[in-house]
Amino acid sequence: MGSNYQNLKEEAYLANLEIPKRGLAIYTWGNVSSFDKNKGVFAIKPSGVEYDELTVDDMVVLDLEGNIVEGTKRPSSDTPTHLVLYKSFPNIGGITHTHSPYATAWAQSCNSIPIQGTTHADHTPNPIPCTPYLDRYQVITDYEKNTGLIIVDTFSNKLQAMPLIGGELFPSKELNPLENPMVLVSGHGPFAWGESAHKSVYNAAVLEEIAKMAYFMIPLQKSIKPLPSYIIDKHYMRKHGSNAYYGQK
Amino acid sequence: MGSNYQNLKEEAYLANLEIPKRGLAIYTWGNVSSFDKNKGVFAIKPSGVEYDELTVDDMVVLDLEGNIVEGTKRPSSDTPTHLVLYKSFPNIGGITHTHSPYATAWAQSCNSIPIQGTTHADHTPNPIPCTPYLDRYQVITDYEKNTGLIIVDTFSNKLQAMPLIGGELFPSKELNPLENPMVLVSGHGPFAWGESAHKSVYNAAVLEEIAKMAYFMIPLQKSIKPLPSYIIDKHYMRKHGSNAYYGQK
Amino acid sequence: MGSNYQNLKEEAYLANLEIPKRGLAIYTWGNVSSFDKNKGVFAIKPSGVEYDELTVDDMVVLDLEGNIVEGTKRPSSDTPTHLVLYKSFPNIGGITHTHSPYATAWAQSCNSIPIQGTTHADHTPNPIPCTPYLDRYQVITDYEKNTGLIIVDTFSNKLQAMPLIGGELFPSKELNPLENPMVLVSGHGPFAWGESAHKSVYNAAVLEEIAKMAYFMIPLQKSIKPLPSYIIDKHYMRKHGSNAYYGQK
Amino acid sequence: MGSNYQNLKEEAYLANLEIPKRGLAIYTWGNVSSFDKNKGVFAIKPSGVEYDELTVDDMVVLDLEGNIVEGTKRPSSDTPTHLVLYKSFPNIGGITHTHSPYATAWAQSCNSIPIQGTTHADHTPNPIPCTPYLDRYQVITDYEKNTGLIIVDTFSNKLQAMPLIGGELFPSKELNPLENPMVLVSGHGPFAWGESAHKSVYNAAVLEEIAKMAYFMIPLQKSIKPLPSYIIDKHYMRKHGSNAYYGQK
Repeated sequence: MGSNYQNLKEEAYLANLEIPKRGLAIYTWGNVSSFDKNKGVFAIKPSGVEYDELTVDDMVVLDLEGNIVEGTKRPSSDTPTHLVLYKSFPNIGGITHTHSPYATAWAQSCNSIPIQGTTHADHTPNPIPCTPYLDRYQVITDYEKNTGLIIVDTFSNKLQAMPLIGGELFPSKELNPLENPMVLVSGHGPFAWGESAHKSVYNAAVLEEIAKMAYFMIPLQKSIKPLPSYIIDKHYMRKHGSNAYYGQK
Repeated sequence: MGSNYQNLKEEAYLANLEIPKRGLAIYTWGNVSSFDKNKGVFAIKPSGVEYDELTVDDMVVLDLEGNIVEGTKRPSSDTPTHLVLYKSFPNIGGITHTHSPYATAWAQSCNSIPIQGTTHADHTPNPIPCTPYLDRYQVITDYEKNTGLIIVDTFSNKLQAMPLIGGELFPSKELNPLENPMVLVSGHGPFAWGESAHKSVYNAAVLEEIAKMAYFMIPLQKSIKPLPSYIIDKHYMRKHGSNAYYGQK
Repeated sequence: MGSNYQNLKEEAYLANLEIPKRGLAIYTWGNVSSFDKNKGVFAIKPSGVEYDELTVDDMVVLDLEGNIVEGTKRPSSDTPTHLVLYKSFPNIGGITHTHSPYATAWAQSCNSIPIQGTTHADHTPNPIPCTPYLDRYQVITDYEKNTGLIIVDTFSNKLQAMPLIGGELFPSKELNPLENPMVLVSGHGPFAWGESAHKSVYNAAVLEEIAKMAYFMIPLQKSIKPLPSYIIDKHYMRKHGSNAYYGQK
Repeated sequence: MGSNYQNLKEEAYLANLEIPKRGLAIYTWGNVSSFDKNKGVFAIKPSGVEYDELTVDDMVVLDLEGNIVEGTKRPSSDTPTHLVLYKSFPNIGGITHTHSPYATAWAQSCNSIPIQGTTHADHTPNPIPCTPYLDRYQVITDYEKNTGLIIVDTFSNKLQAMPLIGGELFPSKELNPLENPMVLVSGHGPFAWGESAHKSVYNAAVLEEIAKMAYFMIPLQKSIKPLPSYIIDKHYMRKHGSNAYYGQK
């Protein structure tokens, strides 16, 4: 009768509802999954169901081989992307994909987003990377899986992220997924993740705000005005360093 | 007593309410119609009635000769445009006209919208066509009917759609209305359609998102960055091809 | 006990509430008045009261000499502007002043808004005029009255309205206030009016939409693309001409 | 049992809720404090708590030495900035910090905002100052306290505020905090204050509107169009001068 994954499905369900509430996508666009590390399964939005009609029971639970272990609906067509990310990025507990308009415009224009303010530095100490386009072969075969892999390869520095707007090269280094919980996929849009499904939607909303502010700056400056590195370090470390003092406890 | 077209009028009514809910027009602007193929009639919003005050009974039902078969109100002044589209585009079940601001700005500037991202390619494999202006004679005589005809002539490739922003010519070919459920009319604004009234409003909302994202990209790139055609094909076909795997069933 | 102007005050009250509902101003900014031609009095928002706290009884009723005939609060500081407009523009029944952001940006930049689409032509057959700045003397003496007079003088063609964006001169002719129910005051913001208080807020919302669409067009075109005059005539006349067929009856 | 600071905490609580309601920040971003001059204490938002979950009892009360006198949560990490401002700016009763997008984009681009319209002049007779960046030493040591000090030093004219967009120098003079209740901190974002916590949020919302309108003007003009000084004086004085006639009483 009851589900073996009730909590997991509820987390995924509630996080999916945050997408329209936060204005991150309309109708059926976007999807959130919630991962249970102990059981090695994740719950994800069913494909093509409008947020207005979504129920907890619609959530589809899959293992990391991509087998459906609970649910009667088809999972999101982006499920193989989530699967690759869960397998490759240890310690993440939720993933969010949206079509939020500012982040999507940056992704469509194939620019990484430079750090120009503390709102950005509060959440990641690096520019927001934009992956290269997938090539023709990667698109024709296992497109959604390869979308995950191009993100992973960009983070492992096997692939070079796109240059920052203005032309500066993206710093050539490995990116830690928990320190850099957001990415743009060229021509497509944003993905974000975090320790939980809720936190992944939070990061998707943060990315939209960062993308919006960086967009607004374009006519306000003659050239890109990078935030001084000592301010980046301070803002990132006061929230995320070993001596962090932002938040409770 | 009862109506012979209760369901049809309810579909039209509910779809019209989506216009202000989705932010696609204010006050009385915009209109949706719902078509019953078997009966050969469509229900449409009455002219100049505010969405706040609209009722199901206000809907006006017409046949394809333009005769009112039910309803006491005047139908939308754009009714002859809807009529031409229903007669010319077989298999569409609903039409939506809005003044959504980004799509309208593109229409006013007489630019077709190039495909620059997967959000666009998910919904149509071609640029969004912008018709030419109607000429003086077409405006003075049967203006609303001629608005429908210029859309039809642009889709049949009798008329060339306006160039894409950046100057590239619109691809010279016939457009299938079900594959290309959106159009801009030069100087005026967007029209969209679909298998149902609800789906036509959905397409009108999609068009506004596509127009917004394409607008946001302008200062983000030195020149128009078209999405590679193999990504266009993949995204369109995974939702609409014979082997589509997006959505349920 | 009861008010002699209960209906008039309710009209003004309800129309004032439309300002925040339609996103036309925040907090106390903006004001609407409602005019009773037979009694020669108008009801207006009290000065500096937030919309959240406004009541019908707060409305202040004044005659056309500026005497308060009912109400215990101070009327809007813009009251003398309303008074001049009621005296000078016969047949208007309501006036709205807002600080809606797009219209205000146009006013601050001292540009009249050219007609570039049918959304504009549906509501007025002319560009939206922007008055010149008031001069130092006009500001120091009777500032609010002179704000009304500079609008009146711009409409009577005693003063030339500011050029359209792009540099073209504003057409040199008298403007009929009922055909042109909107104006921008240089450096300040928009005023609108209509046959009723409700209609004046409608026109203020229309002006914001027109200003937004014209703003969005700037990067979409190489130079200003005026709407062909035969389309302007058609759209204006189908709603407002002697053979108008838009709306009911 | 009961709190000694119930009213103060309620003022701070209600003012904090205005931040998401007015669209000035998402999630936990931003914070408001409320100051009791007689008791020499202020109540402030706890660090990292989402607005949806905030309660009156979560508010933290501190004295001007930074000691917590009531509350079990950690206060906002920006508390030392508030503290410096309360000590340096006599007669202010509330402080608000947000990440509202237009004001933040101006702060990130290190531009002061020129007066280009009466919406601005209604609230302050000077440009909105943008402080310089803090230097490396100021960031490494007592960052939040130094954020307060750089605001104070900019207002005392010890430091020169950043130039206005367009390049004009910021007027070299002392700024009265009650006449200039808003500031941008370079690379970071806006701070605002006022006679009460509620008034400080009002000023933060005003700053966002001013920043938005000034942003919208950029493509509408060939060069910065400053508002004539006699209009600035008139608008500021009719609301704030000794003969002010805006508002009640």
